[in-house]
Amino acid sequence: MKKQMNDFVEKVITFLGFLWRAVWKVGREDPRRVIHSLKVGTALTLVSLLYLMEPLFKGTGENAMWAVMTVVVVLEFTAGATLSKGLNRGLGTLLAGSLAFFIEYISDASGSIFQAVFVGAAVFLIGSAATYMRFFPLIKKNYDYGVLIFLLTFNLITVSSYRVENVLKIARDRFYTIVIGCGICLLMSLLVFPNWSGEDLHNSTIFKLESLAQCVESCVNEYFGTAELEATKYNSSEDPIYEGYKTVLDSKSIDETLALQASWEPRYSRCCHRYPWQQYIKVGATLRQFGYSVVALRGCLQTEIQTPRPIRALFKDSCIRLGKEVSKVLKELSDSIRNNHHFSPGVLSDQIQEALQDLNSAIKSQPRLFLGSKYSQTAKIVQESAVHLEEKHEGDSGVLSPSTEANSATVLGLKTRSTSGEQPKEGEQKVLRPQLSKIASTSLEFSEALPFAAFASLLVEMVAKLDHVIEEVEELGRMAHFKEFRDGDEIVLNCETPRIDVIQNNLPSHATD
Amino acid sequence: MKKQMNDFVEKVITFLGFLWRAVWKVGREDPRRVIHSLKVGTALTLVSLLYLMEPLFKGTGENAMWAVMTVVVVLEFTAGATLSKGLNRGLGTLLAGSLAFFIEYISDASGSIFQAVFVGAAVFLIGSAATYMRFFPLIKKNYDYGVLIFLLTFNLITVSSYRVENVLKIARDRFYTIVIGCGICLLMSLLVFPNWSGEDLHNSTIFKLESLAQCVESCVNEYFGTAELEATKYNSSEDPIYEGYKTVLDSKSIDETLALQASWEPRYSRCCHRYPWQQYIKVGATLRQFGYSVVALRGCLQTEIQTPRPIRALFKDSCIRLGKEVSKVLKELSDSIRNNHHFSPGVLSDQIQEALQDLNSAIKSQPRLFLGSKYSQTAKIVQESAVHLEEKHEGDSGVLSPSTEANSATVLGLKTRSTSGEQPKEGEQKVLRPQLSKIASTSLEFSEALPFAAFASLLVEMVAKLDHVIEEVEELGRMAHFKEFRDGDEIVLNCETPRIDVIQNNLPSHATD
Repeated sequence: MKKQMNDFVEKVITFLGFLWRAVWKVGREDPRRVIHSLKVGTALTLVSLLYLMEPLFKGTGENAMWAVMTVVVVLEFTAGATLSKGLNRGLGTLLAGSLAFFIEYISDASGSIFQAVFVGAAVFLIGSAATYMRFFPLIKKNYDYGVLIFLLTFNLITVSSYRVENVLKIARDRFYTIVIGCGICLLMSLLVFPNWSGEDLHNSTIFKLESLAQCVESCVNEYFGTAELEATKYNSSEDPIYEGYKTVLDSKSIDETLALQASWEPRYSRCCHRYPWQQYIKVGATLRQFGYSVVALRGCLQTEIQTPRPIRALFKDSCIRLGKEVSKVLKELSDSIRNNHHFSPGVLSDQIQEALQDLNSAIKSQPRLFLGSKYSQTAKIVQESAVHLEEKHEGDSGVLSPSTEANSATVLGLKTRSTSGEQPKEGEQKVLRPQLSKIASTSLEFSEALPFAAFASLLVEMVAKLDHVIEEVEELGRMAHFKEFRDGDEIVLNCETPRIDVIQNNLPSHATD
Repeated sequence: MKKQMNDFVEKVITFLGFLWRAVWKVGREDPRRVIHSLKVGTALTLVSLLYLMEPLFKGTGENAMWAVMTVVVVLEFTAGATLSKGLNRGLGTLLAGSLAFFIEYISDASGSIFQAVFVGAAVFLIGSAATYMRFFPLIKKNYDYGVLIFLLTFNLITVSSYRVENVLKIARDRFYTIVIGCGICLLMSLLVFPNWSGEDLHNSTIFKLESLAQCVESCVNEYFGTAELEATKYNSSEDPIYEGYKTVLDSKSIDETLALQASWEPRYSRCCHRYPWQQYIKVGATLRQFGYSVVALRGCLQTEIQTPRPIRALFKDSCIRLGKEVSKVLKELSDSIRNNHHFSPGVLSDQIQEALQDLNSAIKSQPRLFLGSKYSQTAKIVQESAVHLEEKHEGDSGVLSPSTEANSATVLGLKTRSTSGEQPKEGEQKVLRPQLSKIASTSLEFSEALPFAAFASLLVEMVAKLDHVIEEVEELGRMAHFKEFRDGDEIVLNCETPRIDVIQNNLPSHATD
């Protein structure tokens, strides 16, 4: 009996410890969540005073419940979301009240049966029309909540008007209490430790630029890195490269939500210009495009048929340099957004140019891996040498080194490890592999230089996409009136500010009542 | 005066015509929207009867407003969403009612001042705790709405308990009317023309597979296609390739929402097994990975430095064939999902194998474009031929043909047209281009064969990713108990069913009150 009791107590303690760690983790990920929770608690207590304090209750009466409801529903995590919901709610209530009053005015003149039929028909028509309106993209994007509140208020007022006499007074009282509720919400969200959607968007853009910079650098480094690490590094849940571009690729919907909310926020940049939140979405779109290149580049790391290390080593320095330069430009861009400074293109693009030229001359200085057959005369010579090579290779094939044999057992890139994070399950039927492994041995020469060609080509294309990113960030700088960059200014690489990964920050969804 | 009148009438007519077209367009995109609107209208009229009909009103009284509110809020576009909201609402109300009753029971014993303080403290604590709970990923994902309703009901009951005597009766009546409202919603959404989230998810998966198939085929065809079309085809808003993979890449959040809603739906496949909605998400993830390859492949179409057409023509047939085979497998997969049939891998993977071998031998039969420098002896010969080529090329450089000159004026892939849909604005300062154009002329030989190598490599990698897609679809077939494919069965390519692009179907967001 005592032992059972002890077991039970132990279990409870374990469970409490687990719970505490979960609670702690959620709070530590973003301390603003704790503040937000306390803000909601305070707002609810404030609005409860409408009931609890005698003089206030005399003013509002039972209608105070609408204020309570408004606070629960409208107070969102960021100021923009709260404003958008509050204004939508106010507007929807006002419109619905007017329309309901109009309908009551018409139906009131007639008899009871006719009034009932009229009210029923009005409810059906307005209900269907309002619901249909919610499918319009423009209304859905900005005023969906307003239309819903319109529908709700309209129904409540119209229907109760059949039983209650003074509908105008009901509507007015309800509107007042909703205004009180909205007022408390706006007070709490705009003045007490406000969270700005715009700030989140700004930070997430900086964060995305930085993670892409890291991604590119580690991709290139890994490609020329040591082989021993390969076995462990594809545990995709901890893979920093995967984590880096994943946040970028999945950022579309969260960016758009944040930009929409931010557009409701009354914040102005220097010189009283509105922040160009839509431009952040464009920057995000070019970053996603850039991200697709990073994914493709990472694909090069993962195909099993790799260009042999000796060949890769020939281009190691220049490729790593190019990767570093690209990553430097991205870091520079993120810094320019963080400090509201214009981007200084001169120095960096010179360096990228040098790096490109470096890679170019590295490739040119090597035995031609990549020859065009355009020059028919030389092509003939190349062909001869190719025949030579073939013979040489066939001669070799009897004494394949173990590593080459291992290579030929793999398939034509078919054993790429899963990029999507799902590891292919062992022991399952692989559809294409058995057949394809036959080809592998015959296609060895073909596939050997190919992966490096793809790698280099993708690297160059990445530089091209970088150009688009720079363009959009410059456009952002122009629109947001960033400070001009003067030649004398020092570029301060300030990476110390804590980076809040807002994409990980679970904003409450809009499921509300 | 008359003319002004006429102008005005004309403007009104134009506006009405515009409005009608907009209304028509929204309805034609998905006729289910019209049906849903009518359903909402009917449900609202039904619930209004609680007020309008004397015997019903006697039963519910003023509490009928809670039923109206429930219908407005809970009735969503699909059955899954309605069920999830309805059950959350019911559960939240029940829990909140119990807790509120408990708190009232405690506070009732003491004096009025103490009771007010106690109620205030309870509201603050429960409000903060519930809001904090909404940040937990698990709760946020499944029960966010329930927690909100809990908070709402708890506050309303607790606070009004301070003024009203019989709280238990209030809570009970409110719960009954909410159950009535939920009942009407479930009736309308489950029995009258139901829209199933699961069906949408199913269809969107089929649609994505088909658009990817089309994408791959047109990408490859375009790469080897005629040059004249190039100028017009990048109007990205109408570009079929762009549209094709865009829906796939942006599908993450909509897929997850649909799968979540579908998991609430009481639908069973043959043999009473639950549909594996989570597996659809996994299929979606591998499809997105496949989509990244398509994006990279399309990047090859858009770099300005292209492998010369004569070189490309050498591999045209085998590449087009491989593209066709990949596309065929994708179509086959979409068909297998549509007809709930197991996928028959044998024939198709044989054909893919042949196509790969074809491409392989095409590359091998040509003058070696892609040589490894591994074989040091042959490398020397290649080097000699390279020197030859260099001389030849330098000799040529004086008499560059116009097309080559045009090529050299472009930069190292830097003038790729925008893939993201934003065309680079003309006349703006291009940061990297001026400097880079210098390199272009020197790197011509380097860049000429490179793009084709990347193209071929990406094509091969695409086949590798196809393997993952096949795996996941087979897993889906296993989990959903698709019909076994027997050797005698004919594969019916049934492409006639209207494809509803659910990604374009604007589901109402969950912003509700």
